[in-house]
Amino acid sequence: MTERLEQQIAFLNEADKLKSVSRATRLCDGSRFENTAEHSWHLTLYALVLSDQAGPDVDIGHVIKMLILHDLVEIDAGDNPIFGTFDGTEVEAQEKVAADRIFGLLPRDIAERLRPVWEEFEAAQTPSARFAKSLDRFQPPMQNLASGGGSWTDYNVTEQMIDERVGRKINIGAPALWTFARAKIRAFFAARRNT
Amino acid sequence: MTERLEQQIAFLNEADKLKSVSRATRLCDGSRFENTAEHSWHLTLYALVLSDQAGPDVDIGHVIKMLILHDLVEIDAGDNPIFGTFDGTEVEAQEKVAADRIFGLLPRDIAERLRPVWEEFEAAQTPSARFAKSLDRFQPPMQNLASGGGSWTDYNVTEQMIDERVGRKINIGAPALWTFARAKIRAFFAARRNT
Ligand SMILES: [Ca+2]
Repeated sequence: MTERLEQQIAFLNEADKLKSVSRATRLCDGSRFENTAEHSWHLTLYALVLSDQAGPDVDIGHVIKMLILHDLVEIDAGDNPIFGTFDGTEVEAQEKVAADRIFGLLPRDIAERLRPVWEEFEAAQTPSARFAKSLDRFQPPMQNLASGGGSWTDYNVTEQMIDERVGRKINIGAPALWTFARAKIRAFFAARRNT
Repeated sequence: MTERLEQQIAFLNEADKLKSVSRATRLCDGSRFENTAEHSWHLTLYALVLSDQAGPDVDIGHVIKMLILHDLVEIDAGDNPIFGTFDGTEVEAQEKVAADRIFGLLPRDIAERLRPVWEEFEAAQTPSARFAKSLDRFQPPMQNLASGGGSWTDYNVTEQMIDERVGRKINIGAPALWTFARAKIRAFFAARRNT
């Protein structure tokens, strides 16, 4: 029993490092960059509050579990900003190695229960995974709008880049959220052009 | 539709402030104080990983929802460190006012769905709420042990104080976690006396 608990706590203490992984997105007040742990919490709240945007085959409880786990691999692999340049295949390989190590800290039965939840999110094939992915793409624009530009300014992002890298993916799992976000993004960029 | 979404996003943007509420507990590496948003995420992960410590009447999905929401009121009411001095009745009153305001930002049907989840956590009467409360008390000692003392050092805490303010509450919902933590706490204080 104690040895099992030691492993569970070793994993939970390792997970603490996600609080020190910095993202490209700022807090709504612009005061600092967001870290991945608090981002993950925020997304679980998005899921609770925006559950009316999920299709009938989406299981919100399962979406929340995916969102709790979805970025754990960033402890080793770091965050890849949506508008940064990176090699998708290489990132995927890095994240697989990270998942082996991090889920490998757990007692085997727990790893075998939780890792497939992360795999499902990554594969983005089930309705729940697609909705979870849409929320993950929808939150950064909401923060950027609130903070007056955020990572769009830092990365010289155009509306077309947002449509391609963010909009298409939000649209897959939560089309009404993309309609909503797009209108706000259009207005934001129009206002910026006129200043 | 758009007006409803505006309210949902206003709530989610307000919730972002939880990332700026500082707690008395440090990260495992001792580098800084933990904030309440990342603490909330960590607790949801505790629930996923330590679900084998829950009694048969505990619904882990529901526990996770409680943990996502449990500290939202701290946006207005702040965090009250476990070993600090505060007036419990006054804190309760402040948190009720905070809940009125914060849940009040949501469309009414969502507020009526989520606020009772927070109330259930606060009341600590159901098996799920008791387990959630136990995890909330169990995580800080794990962080303090990892960081070499943390808030125990800052607040001049004795083993007896931990037994009373932390142990009793962990013991209600997750007795084996308290047995585990107590042994580690005993060893930690014994080692500190001998240096
Ligand atoms: Ca993410």
